[in-house]
Amino acid sequence: MKIVIAGAGAMGSRFAIMLKRGGNEVTLIDGWPAHIEAIREHGLRANLNGEELSVPFPIYAQQEVPTDVQADLILVFTKAMQLDQMMQTIQPMIGAETKILCLLNGIGHEDTIEKYVAADKIFLGNTIWTADLIGPGQVRLFGEGSVELQNLKPGYESEAKEVAAVLADAGLHAAYSENIRYSIYRKACVNGTLNGLCSILDVNIAQFGSTSTARKMVETIVGEFAAVARHEAVELDIPEVVRHIEETYDPAGIGMHYPSMYQDLINNHRKTEIDYINGAISRKGEKYNVATPYCDFLTQLIHAKEEVLEAK
Amino acid sequence: MKIVIAGAGAMGSRFAIMLKRGGNEVTLIDGWPAHIEAIREHGLRANLNGEELSVPFPIYAQQEVPTDVQADLILVFTKAMQLDQMMQTIQPMIGAETKILCLLNGIGHEDTIEKYVAADKIFLGNTIWTADLIGPGQVRLFGEGSVELQNLKPGYESEAKEVAAVLADAGLHAAYSENIRYSIYRKACVNGTLNGLCSILDVNIAQFGSTSTARKMVETIVGEFAAVARHEAVELDIPEVVRHIEETYDPAGIGMHYPSMYQDLINNHRKTEIDYINGAISRKGEKYNVATPYCDFLTQLIHAKEEVLEAK
Repeated sequence: MKIVIAGAGAMGSRFAIMLKRGGNEVTLIDGWPAHIEAIREHGLRANLNGEELSVPFPIYAQQEVPTDVQADLILVFTKAMQLDQMMQTIQPMIGAETKILCLLNGIGHEDTIEKYVAADKIFLGNTIWTADLIGPGQVRLFGEGSVELQNLKPGYESEAKEVAAVLADAGLHAAYSENIRYSIYRKACVNGTLNGLCSILDVNIAQFGSTSTARKMVETIVGEFAAVARHEAVELDIPEVVRHIEETYDPAGIGMHYPSMYQDLINNHRKTEIDYINGAISRKGEKYNVATPYCDFLTQLIHAKEEVLEAK
Repeated sequence: MKIVIAGAGAMGSRFAIMLKRGGNEVTLIDGWPAHIEAIREHGLRANLNGEELSVPFPIYAQQEVPTDVQADLILVFTKAMQLDQMMQTIQPMIGAETKILCLLNGIGHEDTIEKYVAADKIFLGNTIWTADLIGPGQVRLFGEGSVELQNLKPGYESEAKEVAAVLADAGLHAAYSENIRYSIYRKACVNGTLNGLCSILDVNIAQFGSTSTARKMVETIVGEFAAVARHEAVELDIPEVVRHIEETYDPAGIGMHYPSMYQDLINNHRKTEIDYINGAISRKGEKYNVATPYCDFLTQLIHAKEEVLEAK
């Protein structure tokens, strides 16, 4: 199958390597010149569970996307704020039968993708695979993960199952989901609490969880996500989601880690994905006439912090 | 007039010195042993607009409050969270005719004082005098200020004017106010935005003001203060209050300063007065059935930060 990875960062690189090893013809698109350069020179170098690999790929910068390659399947793996730009630049690779799979964290990416592709060609999912970018052209891929996905448009279940099968055949432990929106909202609740709150309080997950006000803040934010989700026929189980978030506080688990937004904003002074997590809930809240003050306030605080730190 | 200063920190020391110089008999009560020790040994040492003073005062620790001194007027000048404890310890000094004047920042202190003193003996106000505590027994008092005050209980206007006259006679530029609650709420809006937001964002006032989300956050918080104040017959002029807050952003004015809460929490790891500013609005909001989510969230964030910093 002709697969394009649109955004060959850490996670895109993992999927590229595994899908290529699974027998697919994989092309990369990326926006980082040094990364493209390194992959052209040495292939994509990876440490995959201890095994050192160097895998050659055709790779194109976004401004040089080929006009003679049409993909069967495109996986978008950009940062949320780069998705729209990426969708524009990969237009030449999208044919009448090209499917788009979006596994990005956050809420509402389908609205962006639907501006460029018909709904019946869009598949949404999420993944718990992990990946680290070590430097240009080099990734570290440890541990196991899985993927769930579903068709955006009702009636395209068999196509979704075909996409899942392509990923599963490559060892990506992919499965069709009956209710991917539930999984997406549930995962967005984790990101919508820990990311922003740990960043603004300058703490790791365990420290956040140890505060006496953590539960009230988490419950209120999850309540806002649930109120918005209800307007999209997703009924979040609030106590279950709160418990799921509170399980991450364990210092023996991921508690000692700083969430990705903390790393982006506080360590690296990069702009965050807040507009696609809490900010997306605020926008949907406005649309559905649901008050989302904690999401609004947290989004405003994170943007203020981005500006103060001159995040790029 | 026999005056007791209950809480002889920076501002209490200013009022003590000026009232004593104005011919009053002034006694101090305080809770800091080193401060009491220093004042007993050297008097209260002050630099008053460049003039070096050393003023002797009788001073008592809270656990040794005399039982044979009844005050005509007691000025409470504690931190907000110490007010209740102070009111308990000064009980022996409160006679049937003793008036209590509270000039503390924040909202709702009258509820605490009324537990110990009848409403007709309570006077509320605020002040823009400043004062710095340099160390035990030593203060720096520069610039000019003023005081406004009013009787808590209707019908006691003439008593309020008498209290104002005592302060005015001592050069404290005190005046009777027709609507002290308006002034208190208006000043609380300044503290209820800049204090918490600068602390949580780790910025000075000008940096905060330069962010694109500052206005929205300030407007929302002031709106919550106004909605609560309305239930107490105080009609805040929201645009005027927002402008008043935005005037503080000027780097040529106080913009380069960090608010007192920032200094307490971030620099000195001390517990903050948040429960008497935004937290007071949350409690009143609950009582009046008014939603105050920004005040709730900001109070929770500040408490979380206090705990993470092990503030004492």
